[in-house]
Amino acid sequence: MRIIDQRLLPHQLCFVTLNSVDDVVAAIRSMQVRGAPLIGITAAFGLALALRVDPSDQALQHAAALLSETRPTAVNLRWAIDEVIGAVSSYPYSVRADAAYECASRLLAADEVTNRAIGEHGLRLLREAARDGRVNVLTHCNAGWLATSEWGTALAPIYLAHDAGIEVHVWVDETRPRNQGASLTAWELAQRGVPHTLIADNAGGHLMQRGAVELCIVGADRVARNGDVANKIGTYMKAVAARDCGVPFYVAVPSATIDWSLPNGSAIPIEERSADEVLYVQGALGTDEIVSVRVAPEGTVALNPAFDVTPARLITGLLTERGECAASEAGLLGLFPERQ
Amino acid sequence: MRIIDQRLLPHQLCFVTLNSVDDVVAAIRSMQVRGAPLIGITAAFGLALALRVDPSDQALQHAAALLSETRPTAVNLRWAIDEVIGAVSSYPYSVRADAAYECASRLLAADEVTNRAIGEHGLRLLREAARDGRVNVLTHCNAGWLATSEWGTALAPIYLAHDAGIEVHVWVDETRPRNQGASLTAWELAQRGVPHTLIADNAGGHLMQRGAVELCIVGADRVARNGDVANKIGTYMKAVAARDCGVPFYVAVPSATIDWSLPNGSAIPIEERSADEVLYVQGALGTDEIVSVRVAPEGTVALNPAFDVTPARLITGLLTERGECAASEAGLLGLFPERQ
Repeated sequence: MRIIDQRLLPHQLCFVTLNSVDDVVAAIRSMQVRGAPLIGITAAFGLALALRVDPSDQALQHAAALLSETRPTAVNLRWAIDEVIGAVSSYPYSVRADAAYECASRLLAADEVTNRAIGEHGLRLLREAARDGRVNVLTHCNAGWLATSEWGTALAPIYLAHDAGIEVHVWVDETRPRNQGASLTAWELAQRGVPHTLIADNAGGHLMQRGAVELCIVGADRVARNGDVANKIGTYMKAVAARDCGVPFYVAVPSATIDWSLPNGSAIPIEERSADEVLYVQGALGTDEIVSVRVAPEGTVALNPAFDVTPARLITGLLTERGECAASEAGLLGLFPERQ
Repeated sequence: MRIIDQRLLPHQLCFVTLNSVDDVVAAIRSMQVRGAPLIGITAAFGLALALRVDPSDQALQHAAALLSETRPTAVNLRWAIDEVIGAVSSYPYSVRADAAYECASRLLAADEVTNRAIGEHGLRLLREAARDGRVNVLTHCNAGWLATSEWGTALAPIYLAHDAGIEVHVWVDETRPRNQGASLTAWELAQRGVPHTLIADNAGGHLMQRGAVELCIVGADRVARNGDVANKIGTYMKAVAARDCGVPFYVAVPSATIDWSLPNGSAIPIEERSADEVLYVQGALGTDEIVSVRVAPEGTVALNPAFDVTPARLITGLLTERGECAASEAGLLGLFPERQ
């Protein structure tokens, strides 16, 4: 499996080959691969790699446990692993690796279709929000094609709008502490020629106050049954500012991101990452040397919660592959009646 | 006049001597000196330096204009300049430089008394907010002794509480894009032994949701007559999250920061600074080499508004040297009846 090492973007576009489940575990944990949909798909291929070496039930369970523990918040990871386990468990050992590979490939292909559908539904919103054919969208973190198989979730409507000739402009939140906005979203938008402006995470509220944002769209790492959304740290403050300013706030949610077992967001585990991500910033020194610089005094204590939970009441709508719905149990069940 | 070059903190503590009004203009503009009260005081001494060279009315007006144009948002700058002009204009040329120096020294001394008074009023709030003798305060940017003559505005209550044996712990917002929280607030709190934890600007809302913040205190660059507050970009989102979470949100305001001529915050000029502050991050490479690294793709467009306006309705109270008041015209006039 070949992946982009996202830790090196935007400075270097570097492909890495993962040859074993241990490689996959390391790639997800170190965030060479990140983005809720993409880590799910990557983990699915990781199981296929594990079963090539040992197709036994024990090996399958062991690999599934290793992969599940890499990141706690995004539910897509567990979902994809469960999909593969379901797809291979009834098969004889001899075909399990192939079956797992086939299942992972199916998840990859389905993710693209899902994101394209999210994009089509979101495109209607962007059309409606546009003023004189122009629309300014604020997004946080990276929920683009780098975070998925293709299109992205939050960025899918933006790409489709751009392709449809709508003058879409994106306010890109830097997204401290890992700067996925500055390093990934700005990069992938530039690759496709979508106009965008990078801002400090602190600036979004001010822009909304000044009427410079028609709507916000973000991705999600886990959505509870009532529509509460766990997403990158800082999402909640954007949502509460959007509400204060009367700016619509949408969350793009493939159904694999919905955790139907959780009644609300309070039980979503929030990953706490290394303090060094706050204390050090990675960037390019000169043209291409990638270094980390310390931004705080030596010995400073830092806390680094990686996600927060945006209450459903602050969310204008959820954009799923089946259409838009209210951020509520009733809204979600209207689109997914099989989850009644 | 000797200043700390705040651009080099926390990595180097470097004192710089300013010998002329041009030196002072450059120091304020480049943010070697920053913080609303401190730039006011520094500009006052700058006028004294100018009058030493040429005490004429024309020279005074020219120097005042140069200094006024360095930074647009903080009203303390204009206020201090007007104080000096008022103090020297009626004097003969021969004593103007001395009179200006005396006035600037008076502003410096008065600032310390003002901040100490703000601290005493805020100390009561911290005592009341403490649970089992412990209180967690969130602050944004730097409104400490580095930003003033001594004590600081927002940090004055914290220092007094710490000295009084209250277990005060400070959540320090990093404060992108210039990182005044990470580089200045963390440093000055460490110098005085006040427990603190650095967080990404994105994390404050999550901590408030989780009940980890008893109250927020920030400084201000300009307060309108109705209590609207201009402060470092990102303050507004902290205030709106605090309101959503039921966390009290206070603004420490020396009276020199109140612009009685503005009916509300909409007319406060918001400084727009260089995009490079967003695109590059300064930090220490290894132990002490200070470098800037680029965090976004080359060619990325960035926007860098340096302040935002927090509406009075989101502010629990203003902490002035005369006590606490509601963020409203009535509240302010109750403490400053001479401004009726």
